[in-house]
Amino acid sequence: MTIGNRHAVEEAEIRALVEEWVQSLRDKDLRGLTAPQSSDVVVFDVKPPIRLQGKEAYTKMWEDCLPYMPGPIDYELRDLTVVAGDDVAFCHSINRMRVKTHSGDTRETWLRATVGFRKIDGEWRIVHEHVSVPFNPMTSQAVLDLKP
Amino acid sequence: MTIGNRHAVEEAEIRALVEEWVQSLRDKDLRGLTAPQSSDVVVFDVKPPIRLQGKEAYTKMWEDCLPYMPGPIDYELRDLTVVAGDDVAFCHSINRMRVKTHSGDTRETWLRATVGFRKIDGEWRIVHEHVSVPFNPMTSQAVLDLKP
Repeated sequence: MTIGNRHAVEEAEIRALVEEWVQSLRDKDLRGLTAPQSSDVVVFDVKPPIRLQGKEAYTKMWEDCLPYMPGPIDYELRDLTVVAGDDVAFCHSINRMRVKTHSGDTRETWLRATVGFRKIDGEWRIVHEHVSVPFNPMTSQAVLDLKP
Repeated sequence: MTIGNRHAVEEAEIRALVEEWVQSLRDKDLRGLTAPQSSDVVVFDVKPPIRLQGKEAYTKMWEDCLPYMPGPIDYELRDLTVVAGDDVAFCHSINRMRVKTHSGDTRETWLRATVGFRKIDGEWRIVHEHVSVPFNPMTSQAVLDLKP
């Protein structure tokens, strides 16, 4: 093994975890969405509050949020980059989300996502999530449709 | 050493790097602000574009940005959490920035920051930065004054 793929196994594990999580989102599977997080996960979400702390708050966020997305969730990761060590890892990607609203419109949003992982008792856990869109400093408007 | 502080040295190194970076920001020291980034750093900034790639783009971002902050930059990190392994680490914090605008007003903004590190040739390098504010999904307005 060269230095470049010294952590190829860990990287593959993280990629599998992320793919599984994305599938849970497409399936609106609350149990899957909240399975990999540690009990003390710290989340910076796209919407307020400024920070969510703990798996319970994270689970409630999804419970509150999923009813606003009545149709299928079309979610795709672009340029997923994984940086993995033995027991600490993080990844980032640009995520395209397309949902149907209650009025029947399709809304497409491009998000930036960073996720931090720690191996706890031999299992990778999400200990941090940061999802955002940039904003225009002249208008303070969030910019939802920026593509990479 | 217990498991809890098995990476205490690495954590201390990351904290020192972050503190030095914050001091560079307070000093508006462009060289210091752009010293720890790897050549291929990927940045999700508070403002567009959706992503910056590479140290050159990152440096230009600061060159363009610093003239908008004519007075002193008052920058403080809250709740800095560092998760460090042997050669991969990340940290997150809530950052309060207070600047004077050209019109003399003081503007305070609360940011969420996540930074990813990799040890390259024995030195910690920033390979990823993600800085954001949340937005109100009802109005699409960025929310700049949310405190933790």
